[in-house]
Parts: sequence; C-alpha cells; structure tokens
Amino acid sequence: MTVTQIGVVRSDLKSRTGAPRQSWMSGAPPAAIEIDPDFLECLEGLQPGQDIWLLTWLHQSDRETRKVRPGHDPNNPVQGVFATRSPDRPTPIGLHRVRIMSLPASGELLLHVDGLEAIDGTPVIDIKPVIDPSGCF
Amino acid sequence: MTVTQIGVVRSDLKSRTGAPRQSWMSGAPPAAIEIDPDFLECLEGLQPGQDIWLLTWLHQSDRETRKVRPGHDPNNPVQGVFATRSPDRPTPIGLHRVRIMSLPASGELLLHVDGLEAIDGTPVIDIKPVIDPSGCF
Repeated sequence: MTVTQIGVVRSDLKSRTGAPRQSWMSGAPPAAIEIDPDFLECLEGLQPGQDIWLLTWLHQSDRETRKVRPGHDPNNPVQGVFATRSPDRPTPIGLHRVRIMSLPASGELLLHVDGLEAIDGTPVIDIKPVIDPSGCF
Repeated sequence: MTVTQIGVVRSDLKSRTGAPRQSWMSGAPPAAIEIDPDFLECLEGLQPGQDIWLLTWLHQSDRETRKVRPGHDPNNPVQGVFATRSPDRPTPIGLHRVRIMSLPASGELLLHVDGLEAIDGTPVIDIKPVIDPSGCF
C-alpha cells in the first residue's frame, strides 16, 4: 500500500515550526501545487473557484506517536492521535480543503490555491472535488 | 511512502458493485471499523456522536486510470480522475465522513459508525476528527 506522488507543494512556508495548523486559521498563505507532468490530464474538469481536498504526505512526521497534547499546549489533556489533527500519526496524511485560484496554463505545471498550511516540498498524493450538497464533503 | 493499516471495515456491503458511491447518498449502511489492537490507544478522546473522517485504502482500484465518466454514465463527459470521486486513481484513498455511534468497549475492537459506503474488508489507514467551526473540515 504505497502512495503515488502526483505533485509537490510550492509555498513560502519553509519549516514546520512556522506553519499554521489548519488552513482556516489565520496565516495560511497562498500556495501552488506543482503537478507531475504524468498526472496533468487527471485535472481535466476542475475549475477555478472550485473547492477541493488536497491529500498530502506529511514527510516530516513521527509515525510512532500514539498520543499527543493538541497544539503542544501543556494545558490540553493528552489524546490519542486519531482524536487530533497532529501530523504525527501512523499514516501521516494531511487533509486540506482549499480553493482553486488557477489551473496550470498550457505547458505549465502550477495549480494555485488560496491558502495552505503545508510546507514547501510536501508531497501531494491526491486531489478530490468537494461535492456534497452542503459543501462539507 | 507506505501507508499503515490501522483497522479494517466490517460491513454487509460485500462487493464494489453494490456499494453506493457517497455516504450521504441513500443506502450507505451502518458499519464498523475493527481497530488493530496496536492502535486502540490512538482513539483516546474520541466521543460517540462525534463526526470523523475515515481514510481508507481502496484496494480494488485501478491505479492506471487517468480519466473516467463519472457514475459510469455514458451521458456524463469524460473527466480527469482528480475532478471526480472515482475509486480508480493514482493513490486510491477513500475519504468518508461518518458519525461515531459507539467506541470499542474494554477488550473489544469495533468502532461503530452510522453509514459507510466502503465494502467489507477495506483497509482503514487513518481517522481524523472533524474540527472546523463550520463543521466542514
């Protein structure tokens, strides 16, 4: 069960320390996904302004972590990682809801999104449309 | 970049043909996740009634597919798989929003959820809480 990298995050966020924890918190900067040329055709049908799910591979994570204090806050109780969004977890996949600002122009590779908390160089492993009637899926 | 299986879907849905395509469509039956004992402690802090994201590994997918007709409907235009929820995609991860009905009792392994479109035997690779203010993340 090996994931396929379909692109990579290009962002001004260069280290995990500086990254906001969720894109709807303040401070997630606009970013781009550099799509692997082999997968450009998989984007066909996506539109600017559309909301998508980005799945990333959080390559700096500690996969042996089972419990954490959310937010690294000593006042928070220890919780299992499945009750948190900690990047440290057995399968370190990041789930990010973002809006497409622009799709790659002909001959180019960059898909621009509005705000993304992943750091530069993070592998992208899947893109899915947000599709449910309430806009929540 | 290899995923870790943390559990497996237990469901009355036994084949992909019979599976509804999204859990908010009609027909997704209640199901359970049989948690691998090594990862039970990762559940600590989750509560019955809470909404979670389940990430699954869609083990019957064709990973070479680049374009599909959504819903296998000949009236739909061909689209890139990233514009669809087709299980056939380069990294075949399923993203399912479900509600926890009950957590494993002491000495047990089953986490029950309200409605899940994944078939029996599907590997589960991650669980995340739904956490954003609007309930959409």
